[in-house]
Amino acid sequence: MQRIKTAVVGASGYTGSELLRLLLQHPHVDLCAVTSRQEAGKSIASLFPRYHGLPGSELTFIAPDADAIAATGAQVAFLALPHGVAAEIATALLSRGVKVIDLSADFRIHDASIYQEFYQHPHPAPELLTQAVYGLAEIYPNEIAGASLIASPGCYPTSILLPLIPLLREKLIAPRSIIANSLSGVSGAGKKADTAYLFCECNESLRAYGIPKHRHLAEIEQELSLAAGETVCLSFIPHLVPVNTGIHSSITASVAPEITLDQIGAALEKAYAGKPFVRLLGPGVCADTKNVTRTNFIDIGWHLDARTNRLIITSAEDNVIKGAGGQAIQSFNLIFGLDEKAGLQSV
Amino acid sequence: MQRIKTAVVGASGYTGSELLRLLLQHPHVDLCAVTSRQEAGKSIASLFPRYHGLPGSELTFIAPDADAIAATGAQVAFLALPHGVAAEIATALLSRGVKVIDLSADFRIHDASIYQEFYQHPHPAPELLTQAVYGLAEIYPNEIAGASLIASPGCYPTSILLPLIPLLREKLIAPRSIIANSLSGVSGAGKKADTAYLFCECNESLRAYGIPKHRHLAEIEQELSLAAGETVCLSFIPHLVPVNTGIHSSITASVAPEITLDQIGAALEKAYAGKPFVRLLGPGVCADTKNVTRTNFIDIGWHLDARTNRLIITSAEDNVIKGAGGQAIQSFNLIFGLDEKAGLQSV
Amino acid sequence: MQRIKTAVVGASGYTGSELLRLLLQHPHVDLCAVTSRQEAGKSIASLFPRYHGLPGSELTFIAPDADAIAATGAQVAFLALPHGVAAEIATALLSRGVKVIDLSADFRIHDASIYQEFYQHPHPAPELLTQAVYGLAEIYPNEIAGASLIASPGCYPTSILLPLIPLLREKLIAPRSIIANSLSGVSGAGKKADTAYLFCECNESLRAYGIPKHRHLAEIEQELSLAAGETVCLSFIPHLVPVNTGIHSSITASVAPEITLDQIGAALEKAYAGKPFVRLLGPGVCADTKNVTRTNFIDIGWHLDARTNRLIITSAEDNVIKGAGGQAIQSFNLIFGLDEKAGLQSV
Amino acid sequence: MQRIKTAVVGASGYTGSELLRLLLQHPHVDLCAVTSRQEAGKSIASLFPRYHGLPGSELTFIAPDADAIAATGAQVAFLALPHGVAAEIATALLSRGVKVIDLSADFRIHDASIYQEFYQHPHPAPELLTQAVYGLAEIYPNEIAGASLIASPGCYPTSILLPLIPLLREKLIAPRSIIANSLSGVSGAGKKADTAYLFCECNESLRAYGIPKHRHLAEIEQELSLAAGETVCLSFIPHLVPVNTGIHSSITASVAPEITLDQIGAALEKAYAGKPFVRLLGPGVCADTKNVTRTNFIDIGWHLDARTNRLIITSAEDNVIKGAGGQAIQSFNLIFGLDEKAGLQSV
Repeated sequence: MQRIKTAVVGASGYTGSELLRLLLQHPHVDLCAVTSRQEAGKSIASLFPRYHGLPGSELTFIAPDADAIAATGAQVAFLALPHGVAAEIATALLSRGVKVIDLSADFRIHDASIYQEFYQHPHPAPELLTQAVYGLAEIYPNEIAGASLIASPGCYPTSILLPLIPLLREKLIAPRSIIANSLSGVSGAGKKADTAYLFCECNESLRAYGIPKHRHLAEIEQELSLAAGETVCLSFIPHLVPVNTGIHSSITASVAPEITLDQIGAALEKAYAGKPFVRLLGPGVCADTKNVTRTNFIDIGWHLDARTNRLIITSAEDNVIKGAGGQAIQSFNLIFGLDEKAGLQSV
Repeated sequence: MQRIKTAVVGASGYTGSELLRLLLQHPHVDLCAVTSRQEAGKSIASLFPRYHGLPGSELTFIAPDADAIAATGAQVAFLALPHGVAAEIATALLSRGVKVIDLSADFRIHDASIYQEFYQHPHPAPELLTQAVYGLAEIYPNEIAGASLIASPGCYPTSILLPLIPLLREKLIAPRSIIANSLSGVSGAGKKADTAYLFCECNESLRAYGIPKHRHLAEIEQELSLAAGETVCLSFIPHLVPVNTGIHSSITASVAPEITLDQIGAALEKAYAGKPFVRLLGPGVCADTKNVTRTNFIDIGWHLDARTNRLIITSAEDNVIKGAGGQAIQSFNLIFGLDEKAGLQSV
Repeated sequence: MQRIKTAVVGASGYTGSELLRLLLQHPHVDLCAVTSRQEAGKSIASLFPRYHGLPGSELTFIAPDADAIAATGAQVAFLALPHGVAAEIATALLSRGVKVIDLSADFRIHDASIYQEFYQHPHPAPELLTQAVYGLAEIYPNEIAGASLIASPGCYPTSILLPLIPLLREKLIAPRSIIANSLSGVSGAGKKADTAYLFCECNESLRAYGIPKHRHLAEIEQELSLAAGETVCLSFIPHLVPVNTGIHSSITASVAPEITLDQIGAALEKAYAGKPFVRLLGPGVCADTKNVTRTNFIDIGWHLDARTNRLIITSAEDNVIKGAGGQAIQSFNLIFGLDEKAGLQSV
Repeated sequence: MQRIKTAVVGASGYTGSELLRLLLQHPHVDLCAVTSRQEAGKSIASLFPRYHGLPGSELTFIAPDADAIAATGAQVAFLALPHGVAAEIATALLSRGVKVIDLSADFRIHDASIYQEFYQHPHPAPELLTQAVYGLAEIYPNEIAGASLIASPGCYPTSILLPLIPLLREKLIAPRSIIANSLSGVSGAGKKADTAYLFCECNESLRAYGIPKHRHLAEIEQELSLAAGETVCLSFIPHLVPVNTGIHSSITASVAPEITLDQIGAALEKAYAGKPFVRLLGPGVCADTKNVTRTNFIDIGWHLDARTNRLIITSAEDNVIKGAGGQAIQSFNLIFGLDEKAGLQSV
């Protein structure tokens, strides 16, 4: 069986550790390097006791270094690093012939000035932007298959883009009417020592944050605009709620009175026929994160409200899987010609 | 010190038990009767071990009967009963000279046909609708003070109406552009033996429900229309999230480009100056339920998004206090000429 | 690849649905029948939207009937039924040549009079007791391999027996000194419409229950007595705590002053060498359920307290996997000569 | 009404903020100073938005300085500081005539060498140990009333000492047989930026820690030994479980076969007759933290297990109220001759 020599750079956070979990169990992955500046020298199993006993979990973290990674024979590296940091090692790895699947925001925005507007610093490697492919596997499968540099989408964007892109492409909703309210589990905030994310600060708490201009807006608007063929500017309201993982998005958009539920359903079904990780729940059904956590599925349901002429879409995904590590592995599978579902079927 | 002889009808659920908690500690309340069909014969303390030791908690539940309640000398009765059931005993109590503060939906909708549209049965006592006062204490203080029958508002409506009414009255937002996404703790579903609300079904779950026409829409639209002076029809998307108590609402509405943050703030400040339970967090601040649970406060913050010309309001309240029992006690205080804050100041 | 035709009887609760999840993904299982009295006619995917898209999830529930199950060609049936109910269908299935792996308590207790003492009704099929094998795979692998009727252990017993049996066999702890305090997630209470297990009754609640004579004591004492070669009577204090899944047991036992940590460790290591699902954390380490949930692992750590001459053992498992469905599949694997780890390796 | 000028030193953590909450609402407290090194200059209301609107919440934090505190006229200061830090300012305040109620461990242990054994540093003010009174209000009311320096008990010790002291005094349980398993909410770990207490590390996690020699053992054994009249050495196993607040302790101890349930009950009732915050649940009842959180109650239930000749006691309290701030206020009330219940009756 074909096994791809694979590295993970920056594997100690929630996204990185979930990615590791999936890769350790992926039938076509030979994990050859894992890096972490602060955990170098420890084994995966000692840092993550959960993974103790998994084949491959005895691998030892090394410091992040492009030469060292390339020396392991890595064909591809996943980067689970903060934005602004990923670009440098991506550049170094690409120049050594290692493909890069970057889970940070560094290569998601095609326009470096918009990156700077949203991320508050100049783009660290603008020369790579033209070759980066936005890794939304259901939308860009061919581009991904031929890419050397994948910008894997953000967790919130995935939950908003997949329901909306087909509808915008088919002009079924009004582009400037979109409002997305998203709820995220606390893993979305990362594994950092910050009192704001202590158990007692999040449990029994419901709060919006990051409005009106959360960083993920940049990539959401870029991709929606591409789908609509015109500039889309939307309201995005993220919330922090007390679950470990899961994102739920409730999205409203105006529809012309003559648009029918059947047209909405048909557009979604056409877009996602044969796409194994999109589950269309149908009209009148609401998505629930508990059906998708720990899987690579995104569930999508919809309602048409004749009183307001608005479409209401709900979507649910696991933020660290479909919204991060799992989706990145979809890109990996496409790049290496594997079954798109490889390593992602556990429910 | 003046003490009002007070009855609670239907006190075994989450709303009823929280109301009991507040009334047992209210300095001007003499709790003279509590009723529960299924718990008759038990004391408050035995049904709610939490309240054991509170003065008054030795009172015994009786079956709900208007004569028996009136015989205790009750001047007022709070009804914490399901909609459709409350109206009958309300009628009987009113005819015996007992004022009624009803926490069900039965008297909230002025138009019996709209009640029937949303609640799926004919209104049980339409002749009382003209005398019922919608018990939103910050909006209708004078009407409440003179009323014999209060329709205490629903939990979701309170969180949406208080932020929006002043803005609609002053024509600062577009009435038909309103979209409210609300998150509710599980106590909002009531204390009923239903597997949908088991711990394992709600914990680690995020889900919308009741779209597009949740029952609370009826009273929300009624009150917003009154404030706007025109018919308001909005999108309301409730969600069930894993906290015990708390409602968080994120509300968007279009504003004309010339409207300023100062105008928004001024309208809210004018409306709520001297209102002890509305805390205006100011522009740029998001509400968090953990600051209001177990209190009668509602916190309101707002953002003006120049990119979309939308106002984004967040509000937070405790669904069983400000959204139910606490708010009902505000009406009680107004009716009996007490300090509006009496019995509601614990934080 | 060999595939065993397999039925699941009573698959609608938490144990049954988790068992289904594992079997649907087991490489050697051909799920041929699932039964549920109240859900007959629905597909697995429609009852459990989480499993939608899994191969096999389109299978339809049928009413529980031994003939119908046998007619599907089932070679083995897992029973996830209440105690007292399982025995009847077990008898019928066995007489039709279908092997039975029973997850209820019906065949766990060798002595029908002790069953009656703890379960408050006469044993429903005492004639089968001699052929039933207690399905603790690490302890009785050979007996299991040759059995037609497996009594799969209870969730609490598994977490207590695996740490203690090797120590009692080697006379390292005092049999009458054992005290086990166990914490269980709410899924352990089953999926039943009972207000005691509503979200709001369990969240932010910590409570012991079922003391001093929880039903699981019967099988715990039976197996510990067999290991010790003398009657063991212990204190067992279960607690309900607000997690979905997971059991944590803290067990104390007196040790003679001359017993060393090395002896404790050696006894455990000897017992569990080559046992893939027992992870010995070593001395000085505490188990944490978050490392084992959604896996078939049991983690065991220990401390020797020289101040009190007591050994303190902590163990952690997933109550619906290692404590129920996963463990039952271990027995299945042993019976059919498969790799013990088949279908149980996901982490 | 008498109002005591009161200071709180170190008010920014979970214990300090809960103490502030109680003091702000205490009818006999005039809060004259609050200190926090890192929050100096902010108001209480700005640091704790929850308290916004409470009279007194506009008070501004100052840096901790004994002269500054004394200059406010403070008659008493509560210290909510880490152990090792509290002693210095306690000394300075006492020398300025300010009484001290210390919530740290610094003055709980009578023997400085035991303090050093458990806290790993020399006692910072051994000369004050003889005048410090252990602030267990139900046990030492007279000593507390006359004290200038109170060592308020730890959260775990309170939950273990109150059930056991009467039983040891009356020789009803075997002193060397005691095993206490306690479960604590995450607020017990304090409000510190440590990844171990992030939401995702604690939610869906059950774990023991700090065995076999948690620091609280020192004061537990000191007080149990005083009650027993002999040295008591026990096993204490604390656990971290995912609730915000609450401690549940399950305590086992051997009893002579002739001891009856009535004797146990009588000893507890005699000890706690007229003690307003101890609720004896009676035999056969288990304590549940959800009945005591946000109150100053401790609930105690018990079972006598004839099979093992062990008494099993369960107790429940709120760790930051009865286990910390509330209990400290009980001492305050006793010192100043107030009703013991003043400021502590909210349920």
